[in-house]
Amino acid sequence: MHKCDRQRLEDKVKTFSTFGDTGKGGVTRATLSPEAQAARAEFRRRMEAAGATVVTDDVANMYATLEGSDPAAKRIAMASHADSVKCGGNYDGILGVLGGMEVIETISAGKIPHRHPITAMIWTNEEGAFYPPAMMCSGIVCGKYKKEDMLTSKNPDGQTFGEALQKSGYIGDAANRFSAEKYAAMFELHIEQGPRLEAAGVDVGVVENVIGITAYRIRAYGQSDHAGTTPMSGRRDALFACAKLLVMLHEALDKVDPELVYTNGFIKVHPCMHTIIPDFCEFILDMRHVDPEVLKKCVAIVERIPKEVAGCKVEFEVAWARPTVPFDRALVGIVKESVDALGYSNMFMNSGAGHDAQFVAEVVPTTMIFVPSKDGHSHCELEYTAPHLCAQGVDVLLNAVLELDKTI
Amino acid sequence: MHKCDRQRLEDKVKTFSTFGDTGKGGVTRATLSPEAQAARAEFRRRMEAAGATVVTDDVANMYATLEGSDPAAKRIAMASHADSVKCGGNYDGILGVLGGMEVIETISAGKIPHRHPITAMIWTNEEGAFYPPAMMCSGIVCGKYKKEDMLTSKNPDGQTFGEALQKSGYIGDAANRFSAEKYAAMFELHIEQGPRLEAAGVDVGVVENVIGITAYRIRAYGQSDHAGTTPMSGRRDALFACAKLLVMLHEALDKVDPELVYTNGFIKVHPCMHTIIPDFCEFILDMRHVDPEVLKKCVAIVERIPKEVAGCKVEFEVAWARPTVPFDRALVGIVKESVDALGYSNMFMNSGAGHDAQFVAEVVPTTMIFVPSKDGHSHCELEYTAPHLCAQGVDVLLNAVLELDKTI
Repeated sequence: MHKCDRQRLEDKVKTFSTFGDTGKGGVTRATLSPEAQAARAEFRRRMEAAGATVVTDDVANMYATLEGSDPAAKRIAMASHADSVKCGGNYDGILGVLGGMEVIETISAGKIPHRHPITAMIWTNEEGAFYPPAMMCSGIVCGKYKKEDMLTSKNPDGQTFGEALQKSGYIGDAANRFSAEKYAAMFELHIEQGPRLEAAGVDVGVVENVIGITAYRIRAYGQSDHAGTTPMSGRRDALFACAKLLVMLHEALDKVDPELVYTNGFIKVHPCMHTIIPDFCEFILDMRHVDPEVLKKCVAIVERIPKEVAGCKVEFEVAWARPTVPFDRALVGIVKESVDALGYSNMFMNSGAGHDAQFVAEVVPTTMIFVPSKDGHSHCELEYTAPHLCAQGVDVLLNAVLELDKTI
Repeated sequence: MHKCDRQRLEDKVKTFSTFGDTGKGGVTRATLSPEAQAARAEFRRRMEAAGATVVTDDVANMYATLEGSDPAAKRIAMASHADSVKCGGNYDGILGVLGGMEVIETISAGKIPHRHPITAMIWTNEEGAFYPPAMMCSGIVCGKYKKEDMLTSKNPDGQTFGEALQKSGYIGDAANRFSAEKYAAMFELHIEQGPRLEAAGVDVGVVENVIGITAYRIRAYGQSDHAGTTPMSGRRDALFACAKLLVMLHEALDKVDPELVYTNGFIKVHPCMHTIIPDFCEFILDMRHVDPEVLKKCVAIVERIPKEVAGCKVEFEVAWARPTVPFDRALVGIVKESVDALGYSNMFMNSGAGHDAQFVAEVVPTTMIFVPSKDGHSHCELEYTAPHLCAQGVDVLLNAVLELDKTI
């Protein structure tokens, strides 16, 4: 079994942590920002030094390809993203990019024979934290989103994604796009972004599915009146209605299935002033489970919520939904064999988060490899995965790629 | 009994409704904005036409004084405010200003004899909706707020109140300030901003007190984690904690007293993104009652809330509190006699809202007169008081002022 270079990988983690350093242990690396461009320049520099050819496509997805012995063979891709959320961590996304780079460098330095070209990739704008939606450019390439719609997505400063793309200097030829014609498979190494691996004392997650989501927008319509002059009996308080709904939904959903996760992360209240009874409140309910039958039970619960709560009219609508995305069984098997052969503790698991891999999975055989997130933290500066765990994840990626290279 | 001129009053209501007209039945007349300046210019024009002398003080409070037969007598003031909340109505505040103007015009036109000078006033920035706090400039003049602190208050566009004051051209001499040396009393005519008068089928409210408030900030501290990857059992969801607290507080406070009003109008959630478990949530609980003993019971309820809810640490602090402000018993009596003599249906009541009058009440004898708010609506474009009800309120103001003029 091959292993990657611990020192070189750790050096990459440290170097890339400087691009957008918040000074508090994390990064803010907005899509195509100067910080993200610095990360891309470093990716290009290191990949060209390892003998790879670097190109971009028309939405700045970036491809570093090390040729194999058979120029006609399809490529094997290893990809993740280099953008972060605001005050994000040093591992989400970027570890998968650095892992791909490390595989290229290890193969190149060790002159490890391989038939297929091997490509390390950066998907543009996975987070969608500045230019929504998430997984934008894998979505464009995989036919999920229309490019012309995405170009008009605006960041909080009012700049469109199209403008950011133009300014970045990273627009390449659309002919370079990832496609089933050119690529045989894609692996994505990623941090778990949750506590399961650490809690189980396991080093590597062999990912089988990205679990399905059904998310609702739930709204209550009340009546704005003065906090001091309106008797309690005549009130129609939309925030109170939503507080009751939240508690009601928690009680019902907690009984559905122990693996169900659901979240009310977003709430909006109008006018949100302490002296005015709120006339409008909206929250999002995001529910996730691998089994569509469980999500059906959740949907039934939402659809049974009262039409009126605390005198407020209640409405709901599906905000978005995606079915569970199963990864390629053959690729999952290759990952499992590689991690077993390396002797690292591992377990099968699902991804609760969305990843570029879920869009790519509909185009070519795809799978993911997870490494533990300390205390389960992600999308924050506390995000951490110890160097030896990062390196073990890259070892699995390296051996899985080389194994696939032999079998196709 | 004297009566005001229905047509002239209605014309003023219509004219002032054009200053900041939202086009939807209301006004946005931010403190010292061009719209508020237009209202002030019209106030000056009409008051000078009625023979009053118009001055401002150093924080732009505006005074239109009609001399009486005794130049040495203290003035009798009638005051309210001309600023509005965003998308407010055509009556809150401005009706009290127009009422004072109408009294001056009626006395002037009818050459009604009076010994004391009579002053119609505009208090600057009562709403505090753009430059907090509320009742800013009655507060400055009555020694509640320091002028130098208030000058730094910023509106949402980042302009300070001091800058707005300079730009407005309405800065006058500090020697013009309202004071106990120069003023004998103040009356404030205002809409009720609640549904009680209308529900009781009564035309005029004889206001006895501004009810006390105790407001708390209640905060929950959780842990931000990924919505898809964090099992329910490990979560510390600050929004859910606050939803539970809201429901808990409603259940307990509903049992305290039927006259108690309490409101959770403001809530803040961090990071407020649908894919992230909230790590922080804060809401304000505003509780009001005329009886301090009832507010003590409410305080006891808040201070008994659990220290931990849904795994989140819970903290609270008093955000602000004011005791019940009783109005001057003699002035309340004069209002009651005037309204009875006019033959208008009336009832004693309290003000649930704050008003400039509550600060002035600590400086000179002060009271308020309420007229009904249709459907109880206020601070919104639906705000409405029928012309005959407005006029009856002004009649009460007129006769109360003239009665006081005779008795002091």
